[in-house]
Amino acid sequence: MSAQRIRDLSPNSQVEGRYLVLRKELRQGGRAGFFLDLTLCDSTGRVPAKVWENASAISERFQQGDVVEVTGVAETYRDELQLRLTNLRPLSPEEIDPTEFLPRSDKDLDALERRLADLVKSVGNTHLRELLLALFRDQDFRRSVCTAPAAKALHHSYIGGLLEHTVEVAELCEKVAELFPQLDRDLLLAGAILHDIGKLDELSWQTAFDYTDQGHLLGHLVLGDRRVRQEADGIEGFPEELKLLLSHLILSHHGVYEYGSPKLPMTAEAIALHHAEDLDAKVNLFLGQIGQARDQGRRWTERHFLLGRPLYVGPSDEAEASAPDAD
Amino acid sequence: MSAQRIRDLSPNSQVEGRYLVLRKELRQGGRAGFFLDLTLCDSTGRVPAKVWENASAISERFQQGDVVEVTGVAETYRDELQLRLTNLRPLSPEEIDPTEFLPRSDKDLDALERRLADLVKSVGNTHLRELLLALFRDQDFRRSVCTAPAAKALHHSYIGGLLEHTVEVAELCEKVAELFPQLDRDLLLAGAILHDIGKLDELSWQTAFDYTDQGHLLGHLVLGDRRVRQEADGIEGFPEELKLLLSHLILSHHGVYEYGSPKLPMTAEAIALHHAEDLDAKVNLFLGQIGQARDQGRRWTERHFLLGRPLYVGPSDEAEASAPDAD
Amino acid sequence: MSAQRIRDLSPNSQVEGRYLVLRKELRQGGRAGFFLDLTLCDSTGRVPAKVWENASAISERFQQGDVVEVTGVAETYRDELQLRLTNLRPLSPEEIDPTEFLPRSDKDLDALERRLADLVKSVGNTHLRELLLALFRDQDFRRSVCTAPAAKALHHSYIGGLLEHTVEVAELCEKVAELFPQLDRDLLLAGAILHDIGKLDELSWQTAFDYTDQGHLLGHLVLGDRRVRQEADGIEGFPEELKLLLSHLILSHHGVYEYGSPKLPMTAEAIALHHAEDLDAKVNLFLGQIGQARDQGRRWTERHFLLGRPLYVGPSDEAEASAPDAD
Amino acid sequence: MSAQRIRDLSPNSQVEGRYLVLRKELRQGGRAGFFLDLTLCDSTGRVPAKVWENASAISERFQQGDVVEVTGVAETYRDELQLRLTNLRPLSPEEIDPTEFLPRSDKDLDALERRLADLVKSVGNTHLRELLLALFRDQDFRRSVCTAPAAKALHHSYIGGLLEHTVEVAELCEKVAELFPQLDRDLLLAGAILHDIGKLDELSWQTAFDYTDQGHLLGHLVLGDRRVRQEADGIEGFPEELKLLLSHLILSHHGVYEYGSPKLPMTAEAIALHHAEDLDAKVNLFLGQIGQARDQGRRWTERHFLLGRPLYVGPSDEAEASAPDAD
Amino acid sequence: MSAQRIRDLSPNSQVEGRYLVLRKELRQGGRAGFFLDLTLCDSTGRVPAKVWENASAISERFQQGDVVEVTGVAETYRDELQLRLTNLRPLSPEEIDPTEFLPRSDKDLDALERRLADLVKSVGNTHLRELLLALFRDQDFRRSVCTAPAAKALHHSYIGGLLEHTVEVAELCEKVAELFPQLDRDLLLAGAILHDIGKLDELSWQTAFDYTDQGHLLGHLVLGDRRVRQEADGIEGFPEELKLLLSHLILSHHGVYEYGSPKLPMTAEAIALHHAEDLDAKVNLFLGQIGQARDQGRRWTERHFLLGRPLYVGPSDEAEASAPDAD
Amino acid sequence: MSAQRIRDLSPNSQVEGRYLVLRKELRQGGRAGFFLDLTLCDSTGRVPAKVWENASAISERFQQGDVVEVTGVAETYRDELQLRLTNLRPLSPEEIDPTEFLPRSDKDLDALERRLADLVKSVGNTHLRELLLALFRDQDFRRSVCTAPAAKALHHSYIGGLLEHTVEVAELCEKVAELFPQLDRDLLLAGAILHDIGKLDELSWQTAFDYTDQGHLLGHLVLGDRRVRQEADGIEGFPEELKLLLSHLILSHHGVYEYGSPKLPMTAEAIALHHAEDLDAKVNLFLGQIGQARDQGRRWTERHFLLGRPLYVGPSDEAEASAPDAD
Repeated sequence: MSAQRIRDLSPNSQVEGRYLVLRKELRQGGRAGFFLDLTLCDSTGRVPAKVWENASAISERFQQGDVVEVTGVAETYRDELQLRLTNLRPLSPEEIDPTEFLPRSDKDLDALERRLADLVKSVGNTHLRELLLALFRDQDFRRSVCTAPAAKALHHSYIGGLLEHTVEVAELCEKVAELFPQLDRDLLLAGAILHDIGKLDELSWQTAFDYTDQGHLLGHLVLGDRRVRQEADGIEGFPEELKLLLSHLILSHHGVYEYGSPKLPMTAEAIALHHAEDLDAKVNLFLGQIGQARDQGRRWTERHFLLGRPLYVGPSDEAEASAPDAD
Repeated sequence: MSAQRIRDLSPNSQVEGRYLVLRKELRQGGRAGFFLDLTLCDSTGRVPAKVWENASAISERFQQGDVVEVTGVAETYRDELQLRLTNLRPLSPEEIDPTEFLPRSDKDLDALERRLADLVKSVGNTHLRELLLALFRDQDFRRSVCTAPAAKALHHSYIGGLLEHTVEVAELCEKVAELFPQLDRDLLLAGAILHDIGKLDELSWQTAFDYTDQGHLLGHLVLGDRRVRQEADGIEGFPEELKLLLSHLILSHHGVYEYGSPKLPMTAEAIALHHAEDLDAKVNLFLGQIGQARDQGRRWTERHFLLGRPLYVGPSDEAEASAPDAD
Repeated sequence: MSAQRIRDLSPNSQVEGRYLVLRKELRQGGRAGFFLDLTLCDSTGRVPAKVWENASAISERFQQGDVVEVTGVAETYRDELQLRLTNLRPLSPEEIDPTEFLPRSDKDLDALERRLADLVKSVGNTHLRELLLALFRDQDFRRSVCTAPAAKALHHSYIGGLLEHTVEVAELCEKVAELFPQLDRDLLLAGAILHDIGKLDELSWQTAFDYTDQGHLLGHLVLGDRRVRQEADGIEGFPEELKLLLSHLILSHHGVYEYGSPKLPMTAEAIALHHAEDLDAKVNLFLGQIGQARDQGRRWTERHFLLGRPLYVGPSDEAEASAPDAD
Repeated sequence: MSAQRIRDLSPNSQVEGRYLVLRKELRQGGRAGFFLDLTLCDSTGRVPAKVWENASAISERFQQGDVVEVTGVAETYRDELQLRLTNLRPLSPEEIDPTEFLPRSDKDLDALERRLADLVKSVGNTHLRELLLALFRDQDFRRSVCTAPAAKALHHSYIGGLLEHTVEVAELCEKVAELFPQLDRDLLLAGAILHDIGKLDELSWQTAFDYTDQGHLLGHLVLGDRRVRQEADGIEGFPEELKLLLSHLILSHHGVYEYGSPKLPMTAEAIALHHAEDLDAKVNLFLGQIGQARDQGRRWTERHFLLGRPLYVGPSDEAEASAPDAD
Repeated sequence: MSAQRIRDLSPNSQVEGRYLVLRKELRQGGRAGFFLDLTLCDSTGRVPAKVWENASAISERFQQGDVVEVTGVAETYRDELQLRLTNLRPLSPEEIDPTEFLPRSDKDLDALERRLADLVKSVGNTHLRELLLALFRDQDFRRSVCTAPAAKALHHSYIGGLLEHTVEVAELCEKVAELFPQLDRDLLLAGAILHDIGKLDELSWQTAFDYTDQGHLLGHLVLGDRRVRQEADGIEGFPEELKLLLSHLILSHHGVYEYGSPKLPMTAEAIALHHAEDLDAKVNLFLGQIGQARDQGRRWTERHFLLGRPLYVGPSDEAEASAPDAD
Repeated sequence: MSAQRIRDLSPNSQVEGRYLVLRKELRQGGRAGFFLDLTLCDSTGRVPAKVWENASAISERFQQGDVVEVTGVAETYRDELQLRLTNLRPLSPEEIDPTEFLPRSDKDLDALERRLADLVKSVGNTHLRELLLALFRDQDFRRSVCTAPAAKALHHSYIGGLLEHTVEVAELCEKVAELFPQLDRDLLLAGAILHDIGKLDELSWQTAFDYTDQGHLLGHLVLGDRRVRQEADGIEGFPEELKLLLSHLILSHHGVYEYGSPKLPMTAEAIALHHAEDLDAKVNLFLGQIGQARDQGRRWTERHFLLGRPLYVGPSDEAEASAPDAD
């Protein structure tokens, strides 16, 4: 069977493929009284799908979060692609890894991982470098850091998003440390690398991106601080003040109380990390929103529920707006 | 007369020097019924001063904002240095330039000016580069950019502060453009260079840092947009959309309505510029506050009226906290 | 063909008319698998409409924003009128002006235009009167001022709304200037007349009320200031301070940062204009909401999304509540 | 004894006069160990005063809030006038009415009282007019309305301020009712006249402007509603709905919860009253602040603690800024 | 006819019962073109219901708020129970009391009423006890207190809710008075008993929970204060200060302006009452939300629109989490 | 030497006593050119003091935070008591414990400690009781809990304040658990006892109440969670979910982000604890402010910087306001 990626589907064609079921609802309607209303995804995108025939019976076979093998046709409905499925069978987790079907970073994750390793090595302070190396020595930890999303939604919410975000923030902090030599570069860099490490415990990303119980009840700031603290406590001679400053970096990195920082940044490194982190998250969010709207041929995005404003996409051909110098 | 810099004054010694009068008050008190209570400054710092004898007569001779030549002694009062002046005579602006007595950037301003020129040249888009070159071609404009403070108080509020802030923001934006190739680097860089250009009209910095009337009534966002718009209107073929996006960058760079942006950032370049600008201003503010408190031998700064928190200065000898790797 | 106005439609009758298509959606449902779900309007109101037969084919013929000629029947659905269309054909902009189909002020717009001209003439200050006359000398400008809505939604969002709002605000300001003789009546009046002039560039009102690109990215405060500034720059001898105060009136008229004023009102005229403008907009909004609910026979409006409260409509016969004196 | 008004005092002259003691403090200092630091006022202004000789003994003789007869000299201290008192004796309330020494409206209060009576008579609705007439029939009530300040501080905080504010708000509401014929003019006017009637119970203005206990604990909205309600309950046939709408006008006139309105305006009359009231209070506040700063020869007011901004006063000679038409 | 309680309905069974119609909509759809979409309730819960046959005709027979006698079958739809009705006939208010069909407190209301009477008797202060007794002497008042809900929605929004809330708050205040002997226990207790008495006038609960006109326009704080004030005015010798303090307790009990308190708590009793009231309302709300989600087998509640967060329900078997001591 | 307690000092008498120096400043003034301006305290109150003679020399002998033995006279200055010291000698920490001189709870701390022990024993859940017992087994921990203040300022800011606050909150929670049987009483009680345990690490109270470095940088929520977590990790079989819920109680007990809770309360126990804690702190704060103002003979407190309102103290003789029943 020649499986099709969602990005490559075209209207009015036959479809065969394997997709993850993001959403599943049995709804009243259609000729048969019931139909199945689904959202399917793979790493290249998402598509709505309907099962009009035999919906109740088919519904019994699988659950949200399953990967399913389907056949059907692609139709256009209100200017968007939609699948009309005629057949659907679930695959077991043994047959297939659901994580592969989740949205995934466009970047070269191996290159990012190497870049992160270099950043770790560039930390001059013995204690901090030892701490970072100790954490990354653990294979599970490293694999988690390289696959986790950086958020359930909004920014970097895709497989590899945490790695991407971490490297970007660390690179920005490197630049900031270069501009302001008074800053403790090593401390700032260690903070940048570890600031979102609590996401590993806050989120789950096996068959969908969601919060864990401890994610909801404690949050990634406290969870990240716990991990780092525990590791540092195991390192002989790690100075108490350094532990304190590192914990402060992690616990204050949201910058304001409103976003769940129990403390406001009180050191120059903490304020730098907060702003670098915010810059990176917001630019990623904006580019994601704008890119999506551009793919839909729109000139403005919808008013974003959190940003409270639409974003400008611009004319399809932007060449004119910012033409590179001809000579 | 061997003039002494304020930074070099020591207690219980004779003082001869030339200083700018930042504050002047004739107060009731002392044996003679009145005394003069002054704050003097030069580019290296500020010092309180008193005239106990003949205060009323001396008070007639000069005004706040004058540069004065003084003799007296340096005393200690409540652990701080204070001058007891016995003689004081004002100098005319022809004799001496008051700007030289204002606080001044520590950085090499000539190097920063060259760096700014390089950044301008690196803008690839013909229209934007032409716009920047046209502005900087004007000697007065360039001199103003290189001497203006970036704010009346808080961050970069010293001679050369605008230049320092502009170059830092532009360098951060360069890094951001490198991390996010989807961004229009030229537009972002031009926005970074021009974002605070309205400060030239908003502030005056001849004998003190203050707001102009139009600074108060219109603000540097609108004033900056006017300057840039006017220049761009004079360049043939400058695309309308590009003007619009550049104006948006300037008008939205405070990021939120609360700080006087009439529009929230609606492009990825605008959100990047806002955060880069905020990062730079805040780190500068933090480092300034912390440095000042460290000079006073304190472990924490006072609770800052705007930040609503004290900042951590740390133990005098920080060597231990973040020791560089010995090997 | 005897066209029917929407206000005059009655249930269970034949309908022939020409209406503007405000909203158009091809939806899944009905016996034929698809139906067209429309909102039609003319200057007297709006009405939902459905096309149940041949929907896909008919959908191809026209777009949102077109004026269409329809035949069908008026039915009642959930206590509201709804059209079931059997025929629909689009008219070209040459045949018919879509603007005539948009909601329109109830007021006598010619009388309002004359009133505005009188207000302009009543401005005693030479410079300000010259400025106003210069702007209104332009036929296009005057026509725009007399047709533009004052907002996309909420208050005075109908053809002629800007004119209505402008005259009302100017009349209120006249009264305020009478109560407070210390105010500069001419400046206040000029500010009242020009405060929303940027709406001409912020909004488009050809086939619907919407924001322009520059409306979104710059806003009507900055756009209005630009127009006024440009005109004033062309008048010889126009005092700089007067330009400054007029710009301040326009840029601060939203009164608070939260609504996009880059500056808070800092003159007595500016605070008066802000409050007069707000009063007029809010009373218009309240009366509109209450009138609409009264037409639907309701005693309370729905909780308004922006006002966060329902409004009191009162019993249908209000005679008793506030009976005029019988003698 | 030829008493001098504070406005007429000139430096370096003998002073004889009667003033109200607004503030009194016995402080450590001066040659005698103690001195009296006073603020005196009469209806034309305020002036600081000192008693350097025999301060302790003199201090025993009188209290804050007393009217005192003084002799001394007027001196200049830090550019402001200050009295050096040599003699001081308190007057009993029988000898003199302290209220005459409080700041007082510049307006012709008798004319305002007649204007208010006309406004009352213009109310067409029988019930509302009867209510207003019943209230004003009471001599004490009328006298209170005509002397009370409208606030302890900020706007209209002088004898006659409530009357001035009430008439201004009522006149604005008349204009609003003329612009919007859908409004119930009689209800709006009655609301305007009665909106601040609770100030009579909230404030005391015998020897200073202060809050009463019930003013602090209940506030003038509830207190005003009680008065009006009680009066309306005594009028036969007063419609319940009308009572309700009038109470709502009073209780919601601050417009937002933050200023102590237990309910947001929910009728068009209520929103109109709120904005008219706010406009009048704010313009009065601005003009007061600006006038005071102009008298001190300043170009900008200080940043106002509540407004959070300085206000523009302008150049001393404003002739140029807004020159009346010469022809 | 054996009527079934909603709590006892099971899927795929015949249904006969009497229910209150909470919501009624005639909607387009189904084979017949129209169907009735209803929400029914009795004191044990609510259930959606549909009438697919003859919907238009049946719709004419009854209104929202009626109690109806129905027959049909219970089906499962999207995991929830739903009724398919074949017959429906309205009952007149004479036949049946709609209040019995509204949600109802689980508690023993008679016991709560006795507890409240005891709390009243425990008030030692003569005036306050007399006031309470006078109010409760009125049969209608007592019956209202014992049936009213404490709110339209959110907390204690069921028949008997006000009684439940009042007793809980009074008991908490008793405890607080015990912990802080400086508090005036009698005043605090009287305040606790009377704080929400205005709900009797603010809400209607005959056939649904809704606001009255005066509820919307004046609110239960002002309405409660009026009732209490009127009663206290009728008691000879009731001290004015005590009236004032009691009014203050009622008017400030929401604690902050944002929730419609015209005054912030300014006495220790007022701050205690506010917090006790808030605690009780919030715990009731949380337990209600959690209980409902647990019944649906969920581990977390939905994000609550007002609380802005999901609530933790926990694993179905909580035994392990908090095991009672085995010994 | 017969030492006098500050509460017992009377004007115009000789003073001999031992006090803690809370504040010390060498100021310019007095006949000798300098004087010492001090604030002294013991557990019964504070008093300002001056050293007029030989101030510079005496100033060398001691520091802020020292306990000093003084002789002098008590005078009245601006209606307040003030000491004029003639002699002053510091005592070493060996001679005397500075903690005894800090403000101290009025309550019987031994009785409170026993009450706390009883509350601990009443916890039924094995794991939670074991955790509490383990913590309190440590003598240092118990001594700290019994002496620490509950805050640097505002509420319970005196020796024994934490114990007092903890017992009060626990008793309130007991009552809440009684009113709402659905709550997990043991969990709630354990949370109440441990909620502020982080104060032991956040504050120092040796010679004054202040924040520690980790108090500033991490805060007592995170610090308390660490202590509890560490102890629970050492108890075999302590259920993970129970740890999670207990951590959540501690981390969310400030209830809102604005006060530094990294998480909002998401369980019924957490919301109950938050409100009980807030109630107790606020009532303590109000009673403290009111008591202090009553001691000064005032009818209203000053407007409190944090509460933004004055508090009502009432007439000196309150007997009438709330007279107990005579029969």
